[in-house]
Amino acid sequence: MANVNKTALGLGTQRSVIRELFEFGKKRIAEVGAENVFDFSIGNPSVPAPEMVNETAVRLLQEMDPVLIHSYTSAQGDAQVREKIAQSIRKRFDYPAEADSLYMSTGAAGALCCCLNGLLNPGEEVIVFAPFFPEYKVFIEGAGGVMKLIPADVDAFQIDFDRFEEALSPNTKAVIVNSPNNPSGAVYSEETVQRLAKVLTDKSAAYGHVIYLITDEPYREIAFSGVKVPYVPKYYPNTLVCYSWSKSLSLPGERMGYVQVAEDMEEKEMVYAAVAGAGRFLGYVSAPSLFQRVCAQCVDETSDISVYERNKDILVKGLREIGFTVVEPQGTFYMFPRTLIEDDVAFCEKAKDFNLLIVPGTGFGCPGHTRISYCVPTERAERSLEAFAKLAAFYR
Amino acid sequence: MANVNKTALGLGTQRSVIRELFEFGKKRIAEVGAENVFDFSIGNPSVPAPEMVNETAVRLLQEMDPVLIHSYTSAQGDAQVREKIAQSIRKRFDYPAEADSLYMSTGAAGALCCCLNGLLNPGEEVIVFAPFFPEYKVFIEGAGGVMKLIPADVDAFQIDFDRFEEALSPNTKAVIVNSPNNPSGAVYSEETVQRLAKVLTDKSAAYGHVIYLITDEPYREIAFSGVKVPYVPKYYPNTLVCYSWSKSLSLPGERMGYVQVAEDMEEKEMVYAAVAGAGRFLGYVSAPSLFQRVCAQCVDETSDISVYERNKDILVKGLREIGFTVVEPQGTFYMFPRTLIEDDVAFCEKAKDFNLLIVPGTGFGCPGHTRISYCVPTERAERSLEAFAKLAAFYR
Repeated sequence: MANVNKTALGLGTQRSVIRELFEFGKKRIAEVGAENVFDFSIGNPSVPAPEMVNETAVRLLQEMDPVLIHSYTSAQGDAQVREKIAQSIRKRFDYPAEADSLYMSTGAAGALCCCLNGLLNPGEEVIVFAPFFPEYKVFIEGAGGVMKLIPADVDAFQIDFDRFEEALSPNTKAVIVNSPNNPSGAVYSEETVQRLAKVLTDKSAAYGHVIYLITDEPYREIAFSGVKVPYVPKYYPNTLVCYSWSKSLSLPGERMGYVQVAEDMEEKEMVYAAVAGAGRFLGYVSAPSLFQRVCAQCVDETSDISVYERNKDILVKGLREIGFTVVEPQGTFYMFPRTLIEDDVAFCEKAKDFNLLIVPGTGFGCPGHTRISYCVPTERAERSLEAFAKLAAFYR
Repeated sequence: MANVNKTALGLGTQRSVIRELFEFGKKRIAEVGAENVFDFSIGNPSVPAPEMVNETAVRLLQEMDPVLIHSYTSAQGDAQVREKIAQSIRKRFDYPAEADSLYMSTGAAGALCCCLNGLLNPGEEVIVFAPFFPEYKVFIEGAGGVMKLIPADVDAFQIDFDRFEEALSPNTKAVIVNSPNNPSGAVYSEETVQRLAKVLTDKSAAYGHVIYLITDEPYREIAFSGVKVPYVPKYYPNTLVCYSWSKSLSLPGERMGYVQVAEDMEEKEMVYAAVAGAGRFLGYVSAPSLFQRVCAQCVDETSDISVYERNKDILVKGLREIGFTVVEPQGTFYMFPRTLIEDDVAFCEKAKDFNLLIVPGTGFGCPGHTRISYCVPTERAERSLEAFAKLAAFYR
């Protein structure tokens, strides 16, 4: 065996369920045609970036100083970019965000890794709620921490506070939340956020050290009609927001996001410095320069995300009629129905016989469920119901 | 003190010599005018990207599928992008590079961090030659390794092989080289590379494990008239190339580079997997999508780098006339003359009195020298000689 880092080798050779579904899908498309394969496996936005994004990029490329546009920005990001984002936060959330509380990151993943590496000492624990984005475990362990997973509240995909309070300990350094949630589509209610803040405040006091709340928010803007996404820094002072434009502006490949340190965080400047310092040893240098500026200019825009709500309505109604149990998503472009048998891995394997590509819940820490990514053309979502009906019939 | 990671906090609060020079420069510019401040402190290319870069970016933004252009590429980078780069390597270096040996990275810093984190187990040693880019230490320690620094060969800035061989041990995992070199401008000769390869081959055999050679090559294309930069994978099979377009295409802010695993590396696929696996826990996901494609299209272009050679000629001649000892750079846009007194920090501090912003060699592991970054307008380089003459007169 090669004399390399074993963790890295393991991660680099790990079999990826979603990648295998993708390869299967390519094969099936060749056999039965793209229109007959229902690929609900990946979370790549299906709608393009708003026109303003490419127009802004083109304009900057043609009009900005040709050296400056591609130069390094400062490590924390261009000052005007951060001011523009802070202004938007102040206006949209009535929250006194300052430019110097923002650290531009290479996507939300980069933001999370800078936070985790900035905060954690070896062996400290980070609490995560199932169902969860599985790379959290990779990021936490990469930062030397230990993930503690709280089982899902499968009735509403809010927080099971009993299990949460049991899991907290003096070794708890941080908690990660992701609302609107991948894979459930749930949005934490104001009541959930308030209660979470209360528990963290109480336990921080009891343990004599801050427990940080890291809120991973790539789906913040994708909330459906009438749903309000509470702005977490207003509820808990020791919050670090990890934001990304990957989904809201359909720019996942451009790797642009930020860390926002809450204004009334204890020793805020030191926490910010630790996040930036982690960025150095992770090799980030600075976030990509052109798209820092593009995202700042488009900070109040979103892609046409109405298609996701339309697909959600069609699929929730259709799947329930077929006999699926589904917690209605309040945002994102995911839903997380129960599988019709206990074994979600076998269920998703069987689904392939009907050209349905869906992901087992087990990988998200929540067996007995399956993730459906409905960032697909609406017509595809509609026609998929026939395949789901056949799958259900198989199990009847 | 905030309960954060101490290493990260230290790095985030560290006083940066170059940053302080930058702030001083801004102040002096306000006092005496930009034309009278000779800022040789930073390594930001002073010439714009070739027109083809922005033209390609605009064309892709206007013509490519609007969803695909900003989508995630695969973690190792877009397949066509990697094929195009591999083709260029095959053609330019007569070396059988394959697309699947390339891993697109977020700049050379990202490439180095993926290599180091992919290779190192805790406490393993990485050898670096002075003068060296100081972030190497940050990257190595961030990956859990220990840096061993070999003192400079100040006569030619090649390798002091006696000191190098003394430093090698069974705990040596890798060696980093940087040629053309920041800060000296030296290019390792074919003889140096051959001898380096021989030592590494012999010691790998003696220790019973591979010693990897990591070659950091952001300046590969910036070599002056008649200078050949040996293509390292041809000389040593266990080589990982860390490349970047930051300097060759004047795109430092766009963070685009790659790791190339040499074709005849032992257990090449596993090493590649470890590099990619490290990319996961560092949070890289994939390199920025638009500029992957732009760089691939422009892979055989460079900025107008002739200005750097012109500046080099003017400064080497002028500084030698004034009495400086300078090893003539063979590439990059740096030179590394001896300071006129032993104490390079005091010397650079005094230089500020003459509005000369130059960086002490101490930070590069080579006291008694100063780095001059001559990526500046030629007229500025010319006029700076009067200031250097005054500085020299002060010490006479």
